[in-house]
Amino acid sequence: MNKMDFSNETVNDLIIAYIGGGSMNWARELMGDLAIEPQLSGVVRLYDIDFEAAKINETIGNQLSDYPETCGKWVYEAKRTLEDTLTNADFVVISILPGTFDEMESDVHTPEKYGIYQSVGDTVGPGGILRSMRAIPMYVEIAEAIKVYCPSAWIINYTNPMSACTGTLYRIFPQIKAFGCCHEVFHLQRLMVNIIISEFNGGFGNDINYDSAGSHNYPDISRDDICMNVLGVNHFTWVDKAHFGKIDLMPLFDNFAAAYVEKGFAVNETDNDQNNPFRNSNKVCFDLYRRFKVIPAAGDRHIAEFLPPWYLKDPDTVEHFGFKLTSVAYRKQTRQKLLKQTGEILSGKEKYKLKSSGEEGVKQIKALLGLSQLVTNVNLPNRGQTDGLPMGAIVESNAIFEKDAVRPIFSGRLPSTINTIVARHAENQKQIVEAGINKDTSLAFGVFINDNQMILNIKDAEKLFREMLINTKKYLHGWDLCNWI
Amino acid sequence: MNKMDFSNETVNDLIIAYIGGGSMNWARELMGDLAIEPQLSGVVRLYDIDFEAAKINETIGNQLSDYPETCGKWVYEAKRTLEDTLTNADFVVISILPGTFDEMESDVHTPEKYGIYQSVGDTVGPGGILRSMRAIPMYVEIAEAIKVYCPSAWIINYTNPMSACTGTLYRIFPQIKAFGCCHEVFHLQRLMVNIIISEFNGGFGNDINYDSAGSHNYPDISRDDICMNVLGVNHFTWVDKAHFGKIDLMPLFDNFAAAYVEKGFAVNETDNDQNNPFRNSNKVCFDLYRRFKVIPAAGDRHIAEFLPPWYLKDPDTVEHFGFKLTSVAYRKQTRQKLLKQTGEILSGKEKYKLKSSGEEGVKQIKALLGLSQLVTNVNLPNRGQTDGLPMGAIVESNAIFEKDAVRPIFSGRLPSTINTIVARHAENQKQIVEAGINKDTSLAFGVFINDNQMILNIKDAEKLFREMLINTKKYLHGWDLCNWI
Amino acid sequence: MNKMDFSNETVNDLIIAYIGGGSMNWARELMGDLAIEPQLSGVVRLYDIDFEAAKINETIGNQLSDYPETCGKWVYEAKRTLEDTLTNADFVVISILPGTFDEMESDVHTPEKYGIYQSVGDTVGPGGILRSMRAIPMYVEIAEAIKVYCPSAWIINYTNPMSACTGTLYRIFPQIKAFGCCHEVFHLQRLMVNIIISEFNGGFGNDINYDSAGSHNYPDISRDDICMNVLGVNHFTWVDKAHFGKIDLMPLFDNFAAAYVEKGFAVNETDNDQNNPFRNSNKVCFDLYRRFKVIPAAGDRHIAEFLPPWYLKDPDTVEHFGFKLTSVAYRKQTRQKLLKQTGEILSGKEKYKLKSSGEEGVKQIKALLGLSQLVTNVNLPNRGQTDGLPMGAIVESNAIFEKDAVRPIFSGRLPSTINTIVARHAENQKQIVEAGINKDTSLAFGVFINDNQMILNIKDAEKLFREMLINTKKYLHGWDLCNWI
Amino acid sequence: MNKMDFSNETVNDLIIAYIGGGSMNWARELMGDLAIEPQLSGVVRLYDIDFEAAKINETIGNQLSDYPETCGKWVYEAKRTLEDTLTNADFVVISILPGTFDEMESDVHTPEKYGIYQSVGDTVGPGGILRSMRAIPMYVEIAEAIKVYCPSAWIINYTNPMSACTGTLYRIFPQIKAFGCCHEVFHLQRLMVNIIISEFNGGFGNDINYDSAGSHNYPDISRDDICMNVLGVNHFTWVDKAHFGKIDLMPLFDNFAAAYVEKGFAVNETDNDQNNPFRNSNKVCFDLYRRFKVIPAAGDRHIAEFLPPWYLKDPDTVEHFGFKLTSVAYRKQTRQKLLKQTGEILSGKEKYKLKSSGEEGVKQIKALLGLSQLVTNVNLPNRGQTDGLPMGAIVESNAIFEKDAVRPIFSGRLPSTINTIVARHAENQKQIVEAGINKDTSLAFGVFINDNQMILNIKDAEKLFREMLINTKKYLHGWDLCNWI
Repeated sequence: MNKMDFSNETVNDLIIAYIGGGSMNWARELMGDLAIEPQLSGVVRLYDIDFEAAKINETIGNQLSDYPETCGKWVYEAKRTLEDTLTNADFVVISILPGTFDEMESDVHTPEKYGIYQSVGDTVGPGGILRSMRAIPMYVEIAEAIKVYCPSAWIINYTNPMSACTGTLYRIFPQIKAFGCCHEVFHLQRLMVNIIISEFNGGFGNDINYDSAGSHNYPDISRDDICMNVLGVNHFTWVDKAHFGKIDLMPLFDNFAAAYVEKGFAVNETDNDQNNPFRNSNKVCFDLYRRFKVIPAAGDRHIAEFLPPWYLKDPDTVEHFGFKLTSVAYRKQTRQKLLKQTGEILSGKEKYKLKSSGEEGVKQIKALLGLSQLVTNVNLPNRGQTDGLPMGAIVESNAIFEKDAVRPIFSGRLPSTINTIVARHAENQKQIVEAGINKDTSLAFGVFINDNQMILNIKDAEKLFREMLINTKKYLHGWDLCNWI
Repeated sequence: MNKMDFSNETVNDLIIAYIGGGSMNWARELMGDLAIEPQLSGVVRLYDIDFEAAKINETIGNQLSDYPETCGKWVYEAKRTLEDTLTNADFVVISILPGTFDEMESDVHTPEKYGIYQSVGDTVGPGGILRSMRAIPMYVEIAEAIKVYCPSAWIINYTNPMSACTGTLYRIFPQIKAFGCCHEVFHLQRLMVNIIISEFNGGFGNDINYDSAGSHNYPDISRDDICMNVLGVNHFTWVDKAHFGKIDLMPLFDNFAAAYVEKGFAVNETDNDQNNPFRNSNKVCFDLYRRFKVIPAAGDRHIAEFLPPWYLKDPDTVEHFGFKLTSVAYRKQTRQKLLKQTGEILSGKEKYKLKSSGEEGVKQIKALLGLSQLVTNVNLPNRGQTDGLPMGAIVESNAIFEKDAVRPIFSGRLPSTINTIVARHAENQKQIVEAGINKDTSLAFGVFINDNQMILNIKDAEKLFREMLINTKKYLHGWDLCNWI
Repeated sequence: MNKMDFSNETVNDLIIAYIGGGSMNWARELMGDLAIEPQLSGVVRLYDIDFEAAKINETIGNQLSDYPETCGKWVYEAKRTLEDTLTNADFVVISILPGTFDEMESDVHTPEKYGIYQSVGDTVGPGGILRSMRAIPMYVEIAEAIKVYCPSAWIINYTNPMSACTGTLYRIFPQIKAFGCCHEVFHLQRLMVNIIISEFNGGFGNDINYDSAGSHNYPDISRDDICMNVLGVNHFTWVDKAHFGKIDLMPLFDNFAAAYVEKGFAVNETDNDQNNPFRNSNKVCFDLYRRFKVIPAAGDRHIAEFLPPWYLKDPDTVEHFGFKLTSVAYRKQTRQKLLKQTGEILSGKEKYKLKSSGEEGVKQIKALLGLSQLVTNVNLPNRGQTDGLPMGAIVESNAIFEKDAVRPIFSGRLPSTINTIVARHAENQKQIVEAGINKDTSLAFGVFINDNQMILNIKDAEKLFREMLINTKKYLHGWDLCNWI
Repeated sequence: MNKMDFSNETVNDLIIAYIGGGSMNWARELMGDLAIEPQLSGVVRLYDIDFEAAKINETIGNQLSDYPETCGKWVYEAKRTLEDTLTNADFVVISILPGTFDEMESDVHTPEKYGIYQSVGDTVGPGGILRSMRAIPMYVEIAEAIKVYCPSAWIINYTNPMSACTGTLYRIFPQIKAFGCCHEVFHLQRLMVNIIISEFNGGFGNDINYDSAGSHNYPDISRDDICMNVLGVNHFTWVDKAHFGKIDLMPLFDNFAAAYVEKGFAVNETDNDQNNPFRNSNKVCFDLYRRFKVIPAAGDRHIAEFLPPWYLKDPDTVEHFGFKLTSVAYRKQTRQKLLKQTGEILSGKEKYKLKSSGEEGVKQIKALLGLSQLVTNVNLPNRGQTDGLPMGAIVESNAIFEKDAVRPIFSGRLPSTINTIVARHAENQKQIVEAGINKDTSLAFGVFINDNQMILNIKDAEKLFREMLINTKKYLHGWDLCNWI
């Protein structure tokens, strides 16, 4: 044994493999976070089915390492195969798009013709199920490669549908050390910060101006000072207890929700903008809290999709509850802007800005290396951490990150009505993984018609499913479609 | 110890308590079955909130004992209190109507105004939930009385909603020896008999004439020769294995369902009559079998109500699948006819006809006394007999009846999609029992909006619930309705 | 489809594979039972590692079919490979000896040198564990062959250690249709018959003469008229409820045990003979019942081995409780007698006598074919039939046999103290199967020292284990013994 | 709502109730820890069946608050009733002695006459069981008082038998917010510190001198820098993963155990002293680790008592493994010394020394108030935190302490052999709680004879039990002893 390093200060020579390494959002955010982190260094390997996109990120990443202000020095390398990417990796980050925005357009907007409205369409509902059918076989391939090339690596998944993707990793390689990360819960932490500031300023009757939060009157609070107990499945998470230091936030929230359930409350001014395609005025959140006394932790657009058509029955209902059906056309526009910006960075016209993304990936990596201890919410197979949800289903709860371990923290049990809804989704997500692994279209249709958004008779349900299969068949290679389309 | 009786031939001096003893259907069927049973005798105590109705059945019952052809001699006594009825009873039979047909009219037809169609309306869906809200407090009272006056008695429940009523008995008095009986599964046994006869006659192409089933060409088969493995919850039961002696019925059913899925098949000629309010052409049964490869065991009208609006979306869908929305007006008519007939029996114009009802209550009583062994399907708390359904929920499976014991037989697990649907209902039924015991209207509303038939937005769901509460409030004494109506 | 046979009277052309087909006990008992059974016929294939022994049974079996009084005509064929034996078999019967009586001599008698006394030594304790180490690898081979050559066959296991052997079959081939049979519970049924006769004759004070049980004074009762609820693991089974028709046997047993706990009671006169190597006076049974109010269902010699040294501390304790440490020398003698008798049958000097064995194998086969329904106790993986025992462990409870199905009947839960003892053995049996499959000697030693009979310090425990390994190493091929011997 | 305090710096006006407040060890250690803690202040109410002892601690505690160096100012008040002690308490600390050292003398030394040797005798084995029989009824009384007078308080239990006492609290008042604390695991953390220092100094061959640990050559490590994953039940805890920052301690331990398994290793020089009544050379720890590859976390004297007589067979075996049977005579001596010292403090001759006790109670209180976050091992009902142990049993694992919440952290599952041993103790501990609540001597005897230390035949087991009952009957009021003594 070599003389050991007892300093516990830095870890160098790390290998991070990034699948979906051509991504213009997630991959670049990680690059930024690594650049401002002084305790780590090593190599990031970028893999993407669009190799050119990975190459571009290689260039940008290496430029970043050249910035004088960069304290975390990393070498970026685009790779052509999973083998080259994964071999001996310490960490694997996955953020891919299952198909293109064309397929997503079908996912989201085809059901509208049948009277089914989706605000996001990437997790559950008709859109989420078709997206799962594309994503799961991709994850089968990834899991099999990890099993061969880096079975001891830690895997961080960012791709949606989160539960189905993470579930596939575990279903194919049960010893995998994987977890899924999502920032959706941060939303509620930010809302809680606002509630505290509002209370500090004399109660909810007074105007709150978030932008001036830094003014000397306000307590100095950031999102991660808010401790919350998280339960549920990804995008359908709930909080039954929250505190800021010695202050119990539940009674504050109770008052706040009562005050704003009718008019809504926007964390940022733009949140409640009529034209904001991600509009969120927390009215669904407050309405659900009022009924079930447990707080939805994801944004209204996500929460609504897991429920019967309570908030998504028709566009009027959506409007009434102050949120939005995000169109895929908008997503395509955004992508065009990012492509343009990328060109300008490559051409030197623009400089990629170094800043913290607000994501927790780098914090998690540090904790897994033993450099710190971290408690945060993650997606893991249920080994008992959430009572009432099926064992083995991917659930979201708090967990403690330690050296080479992510240990779920016991989160308790949701109120009964909510629990039955979460449990049914959790079971459906287990089933769609089985369907995806076996490319069993009948089983997938079983999940499709058993979703809370299914309000059609069986004949129309079949017709819609068929139409969506046809629209996206380019990405459904190997599924037994002959009886269907 | 007295000299023991080793004959094992008869049991005399039994005390049977009948709650709902004024019933013109169930009570009289039991009277008939007892009269033709030679191994038992004793007293039947009749209790009814309508004491006069119990008195009438006392008269009819005692007349029956005077028939020369009656081999089971029983004394019938109408009783005015639960104490008098239950004290020292060996068996308690419960068949009550929770409310009147006026309340049932609201249960079934009010939701139609909102686009929710129910074929029966007594178990799940808006109607089933309101009916549960009336029935559970009645069962709380019954369970408490049993705990005091006859804690060792065996309790046979016939009342719907079966799961909620039986569940309440166990929730209030966990040591109770109760089970729930329902003849709905017999339906599938009769269909199986038809399939065998049809096969015997050379295949499904030939005409089948059930009425001539006794002719010398046919094998001599009765309903209870068909052995089936039953899984699910009452009225939403399924069969995954069936045999007649050494003949496996599953492949026969598979062929038969394929042959009749489009045109339907009626066990009796009248079953498929357009004007029959209980019309059932088994098209829902065959369609579900085709998709999930497990056979629905209850009639189409019951099965459809547990599913999303696959078969109940609108009257056209119902018509297409060859069944009927049974109106409460029809039930009221039938009741008038029975009242008339009762008058004629009492006045001596008509004689109550002695015949077997086809129900299994008396067989069960004999087996519980040790006179025989019986395997049949019953409703019991899940102690593991059905894998995948919540422990403690009332589930329906086969059980073996022995002296002073009903032991569930392990039934396996339903296919995944069906299992998630059954499990959700089973959880909802546990919740409605909690709501009913605590008279917690908010929790009941949680179940109401979490039912598969709920296709409304939250505001309309509230409106419908409120309207149904107002219509039936006479039977909702003690519920916290102030925030609702 | 051919015209179906609706008669349900006979099944012909069956193929039964018998592994251990050279056995002089079990195989010949099955031959006799088949010969007197009119509803079945076909081929029995005999496989044995001692091919000559199988050949001899082939000859005897075919002679049997020639007897005029034989109503079940079977062809017997000795086979040289598992492939030839198993291909297309409908049923597979397994009764083998894992090793020879020389190994069993070490199992039973080596521990005596260290102060550990075993009355049987074939299930748990040092002897049972070493026997398991020999048997499990044999069962791995059998299970793998069944998976390939007759995956749909029904497997009936008679070999001890029952739980370990049956558990291995399921562990290697989880879809196997296997169960384990043991006649040990019949013992208690026979004791119950005696108790009833005694009671019938005026109480326990009077003399009971079992041999004259058929006299006109006695009720005509046979062992299988006694219905009992069985719980536990094989050879450590318990009964918490028993009845004969309408008579509850529990209070009778309670009185009887109180009357005979000190002096003991023998079902047959020879049972309590001082020189009977299987001596059993039921004193352990009565003593345990008195303490825990649940009845041991296996004989005293078996029950005692599962407990701490309560009844096996030393030869005096054994003598005090009226049972016997069965020596392997005696077993060797018996074998010699059987060999001699076999020679005389083959030479024509003696005729093999046709009689019912009292075993239930043929009844089970008939029920599995759909010719009848049977309720009896069998060994199966716990799928919830016994509450409190580990899921997946092989447990013994009642089950119902139907066409192509053995369904466990829910048996409830043992009293707490007994339950913890059974549960620990059930876990140990799961572990010894894991050890046997992986030939992991350290894990096997873990089970060895965790057994209730282990009263040594760790050094002596190692020494004993080593000695037993050395004695039986001929049958421990492939185990990692290098660190041990 | 009053203006909230957002400072999160201090909590004042706390009420801590101390049951067993006359204790000379635990109570005074808490006083010391509170005195040096600047963030908390309030009242400590002292309750003891020996009121004078509580009065003495009141005096000493209030003196302490007068020390100029004391930064946590508390008022101490001796109370005469549980009502006065508990009403409105925020925290309740319990450390009592169930009986006196005379009863403990019987617990520990009576079994020696029968060949059963106990090194501690306070948790399991004959001594632990008798102690439980005295303690549980006391905890029933305490739990009932808490339910009435301070149902929202947090309860910290220090009394042994830990699992039985904590289990009783939850069994009587399931909504209680209680946990059990024990410093035994700290032992392994200190051993780990030694191993790191040893490794730092160039390997295990070199001499280690713990006392000079502060010298400039050594890394600056304290016990709580060692992170370990804890599993098991109190005093029979295990660690399967440990790290110090980025250093995995498992391979270090593996080497260390191999090096010291024969000669032993003492954390402090006195630990291995032949005359030390608490002698511990970690040979049991190393021997068990070698066999099962998981590290015992409690000291050898505790661990040995949970196992069959592997290490406790006789005094020679104990001597061989380098630990000690702690005599109660020694405990009585120590008590005399403490009484003397107390007298000198009261008379002013001596001053009570202010120092940290090394216990974690005050840290836990601070975390429960929201002033910090803490991860440590505690005893809680198993809600799934440890796979393989019975649900509801009191298990020890890590947990996270947050404002008004202690959430267990998922700890995984022990290796199979160890798991079966822990599970059996956990079940026995549940049973002894049932026995104690119902004062059911037969059930207690069931636990007594089902313990791993039980190597007697049933007659001698009864004799020993009877003798121990007689010796301690003063504290067994209400138990049904008539059949026993």
